[in-house]
Amino acid sequence: MTLAGPRPATVPSAVRFADGVLYALDQAALPWSERELALRDAEQVAIAIERLQIRGAPLIGVAAAYGLALALAADPGERALLAAHERLRATRPTAVNLTHALERVRAAALEAAEPRRAAAALAQARAIEAEERAASASIAAHGARLLAGARRLLTHCNTGFLAAPGRGTALAVIAEKADREQLELVLATETRPLLQGARLTVYELSRLGIEHRLIADSAAAGLIASGAVDAAIVGCDRVALNGDVANKVGTYAIALAAHAAKIPLVVAGPTSTIDPRIESGEEITIEERGEDEVRRLRGVELTLPGTPCRNPAFDVTPAALVSALVTERGVAEPPNAATISALLHR
Amino acid sequence: MTLAGPRPATVPSAVRFADGVLYALDQAALPWSERELALRDAEQVAIAIERLQIRGAPLIGVAAAYGLALALAADPGERALLAAHERLRATRPTAVNLTHALERVRAAALEAAEPRRAAAALAQARAIEAEERAASASIAAHGARLLAGARRLLTHCNTGFLAAPGRGTALAVIAEKADREQLELVLATETRPLLQGARLTVYELSRLGIEHRLIADSAAAGLIASGAVDAAIVGCDRVALNGDVANKVGTYAIALAAHAAKIPLVVAGPTSTIDPRIESGEEITIEERGEDEVRRLRGVELTLPGTPCRNPAFDVTPAALVSALVTERGVAEPPNAATISALLHR
Repeated sequence: MTLAGPRPATVPSAVRFADGVLYALDQAALPWSERELALRDAEQVAIAIERLQIRGAPLIGVAAAYGLALALAADPGERALLAAHERLRATRPTAVNLTHALERVRAAALEAAEPRRAAAALAQARAIEAEERAASASIAAHGARLLAGARRLLTHCNTGFLAAPGRGTALAVIAEKADREQLELVLATETRPLLQGARLTVYELSRLGIEHRLIADSAAAGLIASGAVDAAIVGCDRVALNGDVANKVGTYAIALAAHAAKIPLVVAGPTSTIDPRIESGEEITIEERGEDEVRRLRGVELTLPGTPCRNPAFDVTPAALVSALVTERGVAEPPNAATISALLHR
Repeated sequence: MTLAGPRPATVPSAVRFADGVLYALDQAALPWSERELALRDAEQVAIAIERLQIRGAPLIGVAAAYGLALALAADPGERALLAAHERLRATRPTAVNLTHALERVRAAALEAAEPRRAAAALAQARAIEAEERAASASIAAHGARLLAGARRLLTHCNTGFLAAPGRGTALAVIAEKADREQLELVLATETRPLLQGARLTVYELSRLGIEHRLIADSAAAGLIASGAVDAAIVGCDRVALNGDVANKVGTYAIALAAHAAKIPLVVAGPTSTIDPRIESGEEITIEERGEDEVRRLRGVELTLPGTPCRNPAFDVTPAALVSALVTERGVAEPPNAATISALLHR
């Protein structure tokens, strides 16, 4: 096994705004087809979000922010602004980043005089994107420093440039380590039922020129036990104040195996995923998604039609199994009430 | 949640011999089509084994034994016997049960005078099948006694009447508990990459009338942690003399989660899976299967074509995580060098 070779100078941006157009990599077509959408008005942006061509909570927020700026460029009136705001917000009504980003753009636009509204909105969208990119870069730097000695990593689900502006979270750390020539190999889980690993993380690693192997989710624990990796790194959907982590289903088994093998499990995510209303993981309700995600895959039946399924989308990893929580503000190591409180007040 | 209702009086036999014909459930067509093959000579039996229409190591052994008896019924000469023996043995050259069953039938036939060879061979094939059925029934009884208090079970991979004559191993325990009206629910993992759980275990549970839910493999650990089951029960591919267990990849993560949740993990299998040449799991080499099993599923691409994969077929669960090993001779609880030695000398 050799170190990864020189990597491509640029990877595609999941979204980028230029000359009055929002360009977005069509994630519904990945990895089999790599094509960029050119979105010229708020309605086109809304449709792309609805079709999951743009996905990943932070990415949706940024895309919607640009969508609202496009609406104001076409019609700076308050009525058009509110209509576009409502149209974009309704695309994914439960997405917190989306709601928050749209509020910021609307507020910035309404503070400006009407002729300057479009410019103010665009400036705010650019600011949101820049903040996300800065957070990703900071996570990458903190994580790479923490994992300087780990040359073979395992990761789960999709946490790279397709999930968030910049280079993402856990995969940003991996990309940074590759930049520093401190990376030999990444094991990526396929991440059933929706295959975010097989479809998206493999695409990201491939575009980043990082040596990788795809594995079935159930192979992770045994490969960790057999010494195949030096550390595991994952993202997070929600972090409790005591450091318990809710993340994509399957994370908990990886954490148990890493703990048993005495290798680090690192969790990477922005401080915005720390939920100040939640003291511990016991308070986190695990969303169960549709049974057809388990029964079918890309249109193919996997079992007897009508088989009853359970499909928890997340699981909870106790803080005691997490070596470190890497955020844009720094590292909570180990994560607990004291280190997380310190991060939040930094 | 209520107890499973009355179950069907009979379930299909994976193989059954009657009136000079070996009837076999076509496992390559399951679960979407349920049809029985009628195999009338050794060549037809060999083809069915090669096409994976008959699968599961003990089942292959029994089917091949009947195949050799069919050959002798057609031509009791020694030359025809040896040709049929070689043809059947070559279908799955590494299957130990197959080799062993064919040797027993051949030896029994050759001990008899030529006119009585076919009858001697058939009697030996019936004896092998009866031994397997008795072992399954004994495992079921020992396991049901051990798990009398557990009403919700999790299982992994395929261990029922499709895998072995009789009712199988781990799933025989489950079926026995259903007979005793001590079972509410079974969670069955899909068992990527080959989906033995989604395809075969779901079919078995459905035919047995047992209430069940199919889950993605990565959901097992989190559901165990959340209290969804009272125990986990799995089969085994090989057991070391110290009680370490090699079984379908994914077993180790289930064992870690069961241990953390303080619920039993029970392993069920015949004493023939205890390998007296192997002191501990560290000596077990994990077979890696083809990468296309990870890259594709039922003909559908899951990732970028050509993505490099790792595909370990098994993992090793340390004896310390196993509550009990249930065999046809009794229970090693907990499994260790002393309890396993006692079983082997019983």
